[in-house]
Amino acid sequence: MSQLYASLFYQNEVTEIFSDRALVSYMIEAEVALAKSQAQVGVIPESAATAISQVAQTALDQIDFDALAVATGLAGNIAIPFVKQLTAIVKQSDEDTARYVHWGATSQDILDTACILQCRAAMTQVEALIQECYRAALAQVQQYRSQVMIGRTWLQQGLPITLGHKFARWASAFHRDLARIEAMKSRVFTAQLGGAVGSLASLQNQGTAVVQAFAAQLQLSVPSCTWHGERDRIVEVAGVLAIVTGGLGKMARDWSLMMQTEIAEVFEPAAKGRGGSSTMPHKRNPVAAASVLAAANRVPVLMSSLYQSMVQEHERSLGGWHAEWLALPEIFQLCAGALERTLDVLQGMQVNAENMQRNLACTQGLIMAEAVMMALAPHIGRLQAHHLVEDACKTAVAKGVHLRDVIAELDQVKDLFSVAQISEIFKPESYLGNIQDQIDAVLQEAKGEAK
Amino acid sequence: MSQLYASLFYQNEVTEIFSDRALVSYMIEAEVALAKSQAQVGVIPESAATAISQVAQTALDQIDFDALAVATGLAGNIAIPFVKQLTAIVKQSDEDTARYVHWGATSQDILDTACILQCRAAMTQVEALIQECYRAALAQVQQYRSQVMIGRTWLQQGLPITLGHKFARWASAFHRDLARIEAMKSRVFTAQLGGAVGSLASLQNQGTAVVQAFAAQLQLSVPSCTWHGERDRIVEVAGVLAIVTGGLGKMARDWSLMMQTEIAEVFEPAAKGRGGSSTMPHKRNPVAAASVLAAANRVPVLMSSLYQSMVQEHERSLGGWHAEWLALPEIFQLCAGALERTLDVLQGMQVNAENMQRNLACTQGLIMAEAVMMALAPHIGRLQAHHLVEDACKTAVAKGVHLRDVIAELDQVKDLFSVAQISEIFKPESYLGNIQDQIDAVLQEAKGEAK
Amino acid sequence: MSQLYASLFYQNEVTEIFSDRALVSYMIEAEVALAKSQAQVGVIPESAATAISQVAQTALDQIDFDALAVATGLAGNIAIPFVKQLTAIVKQSDEDTARYVHWGATSQDILDTACILQCRAAMTQVEALIQECYRAALAQVQQYRSQVMIGRTWLQQGLPITLGHKFARWASAFHRDLARIEAMKSRVFTAQLGGAVGSLASLQNQGTAVVQAFAAQLQLSVPSCTWHGERDRIVEVAGVLAIVTGGLGKMARDWSLMMQTEIAEVFEPAAKGRGGSSTMPHKRNPVAAASVLAAANRVPVLMSSLYQSMVQEHERSLGGWHAEWLALPEIFQLCAGALERTLDVLQGMQVNAENMQRNLACTQGLIMAEAVMMALAPHIGRLQAHHLVEDACKTAVAKGVHLRDVIAELDQVKDLFSVAQISEIFKPESYLGNIQDQIDAVLQEAKGEAK
Amino acid sequence: MSQLYASLFYQNEVTEIFSDRALVSYMIEAEVALAKSQAQVGVIPESAATAISQVAQTALDQIDFDALAVATGLAGNIAIPFVKQLTAIVKQSDEDTARYVHWGATSQDILDTACILQCRAAMTQVEALIQECYRAALAQVQQYRSQVMIGRTWLQQGLPITLGHKFARWASAFHRDLARIEAMKSRVFTAQLGGAVGSLASLQNQGTAVVQAFAAQLQLSVPSCTWHGERDRIVEVAGVLAIVTGGLGKMARDWSLMMQTEIAEVFEPAAKGRGGSSTMPHKRNPVAAASVLAAANRVPVLMSSLYQSMVQEHERSLGGWHAEWLALPEIFQLCAGALERTLDVLQGMQVNAENMQRNLACTQGLIMAEAVMMALAPHIGRLQAHHLVEDACKTAVAKGVHLRDVIAELDQVKDLFSVAQISEIFKPESYLGNIQDQIDAVLQEAKGEAK
Repeated sequence: MSQLYASLFYQNEVTEIFSDRALVSYMIEAEVALAKSQAQVGVIPESAATAISQVAQTALDQIDFDALAVATGLAGNIAIPFVKQLTAIVKQSDEDTARYVHWGATSQDILDTACILQCRAAMTQVEALIQECYRAALAQVQQYRSQVMIGRTWLQQGLPITLGHKFARWASAFHRDLARIEAMKSRVFTAQLGGAVGSLASLQNQGTAVVQAFAAQLQLSVPSCTWHGERDRIVEVAGVLAIVTGGLGKMARDWSLMMQTEIAEVFEPAAKGRGGSSTMPHKRNPVAAASVLAAANRVPVLMSSLYQSMVQEHERSLGGWHAEWLALPEIFQLCAGALERTLDVLQGMQVNAENMQRNLACTQGLIMAEAVMMALAPHIGRLQAHHLVEDACKTAVAKGVHLRDVIAELDQVKDLFSVAQISEIFKPESYLGNIQDQIDAVLQEAKGEAK
Repeated sequence: MSQLYASLFYQNEVTEIFSDRALVSYMIEAEVALAKSQAQVGVIPESAATAISQVAQTALDQIDFDALAVATGLAGNIAIPFVKQLTAIVKQSDEDTARYVHWGATSQDILDTACILQCRAAMTQVEALIQECYRAALAQVQQYRSQVMIGRTWLQQGLPITLGHKFARWASAFHRDLARIEAMKSRVFTAQLGGAVGSLASLQNQGTAVVQAFAAQLQLSVPSCTWHGERDRIVEVAGVLAIVTGGLGKMARDWSLMMQTEIAEVFEPAAKGRGGSSTMPHKRNPVAAASVLAAANRVPVLMSSLYQSMVQEHERSLGGWHAEWLALPEIFQLCAGALERTLDVLQGMQVNAENMQRNLACTQGLIMAEAVMMALAPHIGRLQAHHLVEDACKTAVAKGVHLRDVIAELDQVKDLFSVAQISEIFKPESYLGNIQDQIDAVLQEAKGEAK
Repeated sequence: MSQLYASLFYQNEVTEIFSDRALVSYMIEAEVALAKSQAQVGVIPESAATAISQVAQTALDQIDFDALAVATGLAGNIAIPFVKQLTAIVKQSDEDTARYVHWGATSQDILDTACILQCRAAMTQVEALIQECYRAALAQVQQYRSQVMIGRTWLQQGLPITLGHKFARWASAFHRDLARIEAMKSRVFTAQLGGAVGSLASLQNQGTAVVQAFAAQLQLSVPSCTWHGERDRIVEVAGVLAIVTGGLGKMARDWSLMMQTEIAEVFEPAAKGRGGSSTMPHKRNPVAAASVLAAANRVPVLMSSLYQSMVQEHERSLGGWHAEWLALPEIFQLCAGALERTLDVLQGMQVNAENMQRNLACTQGLIMAEAVMMALAPHIGRLQAHHLVEDACKTAVAKGVHLRDVIAELDQVKDLFSVAQISEIFKPESYLGNIQDQIDAVLQEAKGEAK
Repeated sequence: MSQLYASLFYQNEVTEIFSDRALVSYMIEAEVALAKSQAQVGVIPESAATAISQVAQTALDQIDFDALAVATGLAGNIAIPFVKQLTAIVKQSDEDTARYVHWGATSQDILDTACILQCRAAMTQVEALIQECYRAALAQVQQYRSQVMIGRTWLQQGLPITLGHKFARWASAFHRDLARIEAMKSRVFTAQLGGAVGSLASLQNQGTAVVQAFAAQLQLSVPSCTWHGERDRIVEVAGVLAIVTGGLGKMARDWSLMMQTEIAEVFEPAAKGRGGSSTMPHKRNPVAAASVLAAANRVPVLMSSLYQSMVQEHERSLGGWHAEWLALPEIFQLCAGALERTLDVLQGMQVNAENMQRNLACTQGLIMAEAVMMALAPHIGRLQAHHLVEDACKTAVAKGVHLRDVIAELDQVKDLFSVAQISEIFKPESYLGNIQDQIDAVLQEAKGEAK
């Protein structure tokens, strides 16, 4: 992808983890672990493992990436030419040892294991970002737990909520995201070592011991069997990120809608060079939202690619595996980018309480119709209250007056409530239901306490 | 969807759960639970809840589905006209009670809760199908653990494996599928009750107690906060099914490739009217595979729709929520259909061991090149062994003779191995690595024992 | 799909064309055309064709759809059991003729040809709907060509446009949609007749003549070769519909945003039972928009399924072809449904000019900053004008006053313009650029005249 | 994306066109055209246009791409910081002229126009590649028009075809691809110039003249109205490429299946370093197929992203437009890469006629069952012939003998045919139907002659 767009859509650390250079370094790590575990089991000499480990420390700088790129196009994957280069590098320093490089492994063993190492490293970054987003959202929950604003459904004004409640719902989503990631780790951070067709045939009766040592070296779990063709682990990792990204898209949609000129309730934090328009000096573009929404458009389709690519042929596949190489890194990068952008907004969101108040008032009391109805319902029945308020709403709209004024004139109401009581019924903050309970539950959930 | 295709792509029980009739019955169940929980908390009279519960028992047969369909087009969801009909039905038997129907709830509360109830019921079916597939696969693992066949990579013959190993890898995928489903349940089978904007405003200070009683009635978990706009639970359920379906697609790809006329190693179970061709009397079409592969093409894109639909506006959304109604049921139906088709094949797969043997022989020993190389490697080094075998392969191909005969003629080999030893090296069953260990691990995993 | 949702997402005529019953009737039509064309060429007796044609007239009512559904699950497609039933029906009235039913054809010939006939019929409906939408949009262009409103970019207020210009851009999209459909017809409405592997082998040297007669019977074009495995025609048809649907999604997004309570510039036409909320009596839900947006969420992923399904094996495929059966009809149904919903809105959209005026005023002149800048630019240079206006905007915002009042106070401005001239510059209708030219071009385009 | 994978999945020229550097150069081209057209119409001084044009010649080398990347993240698109840099560069050589850079345009005008210029340039490459593929396929049609092989349906052997017929069907798909591209050009290669909200307000009454001159400068068509928010042109371009890529995926699927060790009918051209396996010296991996199939997995989902992104808000959108920047270039790159890989295979495909013959023989005559049935049908009726042959097939399979031998023994057959005649019936080349007619039609189609 364009470097120009990387700063808009991606996040540096995660992008670095999926860089060509890092990929090769993870492949070197896998080859070193392979040599060490084989020495441990007695498949190759201890000295060979030591020599390979030593060479590996500087091997990354000796890799010819241009030659690797050319050879990858012919070989069909990176590992084949990589192993050739690595073997040649080892050979330069130790002719005898060279033959023990990549002993008994297939290219997919190294690529899959490197991929899992990348996923683990990137997931650490993603988790940290989610944690920060969660903390930021929780801080906003506390700050704005009583900041009344209008709740909106179907893009229409509904009833009042508080800004803190909105943040609480977002925060709770981060809580679930973290739980999903945690639950998945032992299942997906698993070593791959099966040789050509998954049998580790060339290691004869030492295969199982080598797999166990290999996994231990890399602190990965040991799979019950090879998984060259069964790709659920890869897809599961990505699927969790897709849920995270979808959630961020929801938040970005919300705050970009709240930034609309006519609404103007919240704003992305201001920064020099951000969100300006070359022709409209007064604009405040939701640049972070644009980036997050683009990620939320794109990650779902990359997931579709991954699910499709699960249909892999036989012991190791053709095309399906290849498609993963493009989709998985980008899902990580887009998710991390969207998290970074969202974190910035969650931490620095500017809130305009005055405009929230103004928007609460803009229907002239119509948003409080349900409150009135519910206040009347115990006395005159719900359906009748519904009809009465419906009529009053029509009158208010037709006359262009405040609903309170229409309601206050009705005999049925006068019999039940004083003017002061009616005023109280019309206050948005009187009609917030159990929002504070929900906020408390979300805050407690964050502490790991029972809800 | 066409009824004609339902028998090809779907599964009866799950399709029934997502039928219009069942959806309405789950909505009735939600409304009854709402009334009961409100009576319990004291929001509505106990008598009202009793009356609503009683009417509900026969309400399903009184629903006018045609009128519901017409009204849904205007109202934008099913719940609005459903509540009107239900209220009218209750009114017929108890005028006073009618006003307590759907008290304080919003249409999305009922639809989301009904959706979760459907998911739970359907997931029970899906789990049972996966369990059966798992058992069938494990039985095949045991039966064919030593049935040697060629392993294939990139659609090319690789090294020998056993059919049992292939089944073991599939079985292990089912194991992970079941673990994923189990891990997810408490997070996703959660009640929804928030009223118009998630505040349960109309229940005033009784909202929290009602939510708890409501969830308890339905044996669903209590959410820390409403989730009308945060749809990760819905997507998580579907995502697990998509992974299941992708795995089935992999199996169907494998067995359909193995059914190719020229390969002919396994076959879908025979049945009257299945897989015949109107013009080619000798054919054995992999009909089940076609159905499973179509599901594996389709579920990924439906997932993409769901991930996209997470970007929902404000407190309750426009369009995103609606898109779920089409995608989620079909993902369940396709996954269950694919499971049923796969189960049938796993249980009844016909295996042609003779053809497996024939295919192992078709390269005239070339598939054993690595075995030879690894046998030579300890003596002459891996790279040299590689070159030697590579040359021998070329010779064998050029002359059209068996690789064994070329190898046996080489002086370097003669010095190391007797003719009998060479013959042994060329036996596929001698070169299966740690396949039996892997099979044991998969079988133990199934017993819940340590690997 | 649920019948309950059909009224919300689909359109009756197109749904009928893709019903099971209609599919079978198109298959009968294909079989009749096959018999007639073969009689014409002399492959089968004229009397057989006559008999088949006659029986066909009532065959539809004799088809046992339940048996067909069951058999389809086993056979893997509808055509195989359909041909059996049709043959049996013919046999009842004419034992000898029965053997000529489906002579030389494969099941895919009949299904593909029936599919093309469905596409042609449905496309006629779709075209008619687009034509009506186009006309409705053009009428609105003329009515509102001078109705000034704010243009919005990145969800922020930008500069003034007219509502007619918005309609003109939409109308122009319909124009291109119609052009695309027209351009595609001769390429895609093509007969399929190839027999088992595309060679029409069983017709010996009469195959080509039969294909030509068959296509002529059905008024379809003759393909240069069979296309059982080359599915670009199917995908091309759907792709055009996806572009149409995406365009409708754009319109629905716009009008639903304009319906926001705080914006309130346009509304979907009012109708009893439409868009009401069970709990918020004042709401005006954009129900049509929800339906169109759901279609615009869903059609893209169904397209993805179709593109993926192009990867079909050999002469006739496994799974890929099957996936088409689910995707293509639904794309037609969703597109037609979205068109019908959009047409309703285009024809009956309610416009609130007062609110447009109010929204134009809500930034206190900031939206006219560019107009001021451009007015000053010729005199003091663009960059300097930019800076001056930028400063003035900041002042206006800080003081909470109208930008005009700030600008009018500036010496640099006073030197150049009178107060009346400044007022004129600030009128939105003075700053509409070439919008009227564009509107004229769109209107002329509709007449087929040169732009 | 990784540079390492670029050689595997992409094509150099098209990747270059979508490089950051080329994007900026196309933006410069658009700015120069803007200045020239404005000078022509009299909006800016002729000298300014001359100066801008002159500076533009070396501007590309003066752009600070790192600074551009950083600023893009803040600004939300490339054009905003690009215009700033370009203005600064112009200013260095001509202070006065700087203010005329980007006069009256919005950033999207420049980005959209540059995007269209990229599409046009890349489409030229794509068309050339398709032309070459078409020519290569046609050459193979002629070479192999009579090379008999088995046709396969549902992955099962069907009836004989010729390899030339397979190539003819592929060739015909290229023909339609080219027709689609040609038909689309005038509709999609269109200038974009609308200013902030599409009104070109800042150009007052000169907007229309400037758009016309601007389009003429760039040899693009003039749109009837601006299309900032109506993205059908972008999606249409990509949609054609997706159809092309899907077709290539079909071919790659076919040739990779034909390369299976057990089938071995065709092979990708051999090349040093291509398709070797690090552990299986005898393998011949279909590396090109893997790359093409990965593209055919990925392009469909990128299309889904584009269709989704059509739902853009108001006059210029948030997120939807951004998503295009990632999807469109990659669709071009993957399509061009897949074409290049396919071209290589089409030109150099190695054909093993002997194995085709062997595979034709492997069912012991069962594939000729229909031929026998059709030979008998005129004499004994189709259904009876069907039953007779069905029985004979079962006998042949049960006894493990050639179907011809079973058939030849039947009295009903003996009465009708001599042994020599039966042998003739069983020859695959006797049962090719109208394949040669189809091949002729495809060859004529290529010459633009009537079919």
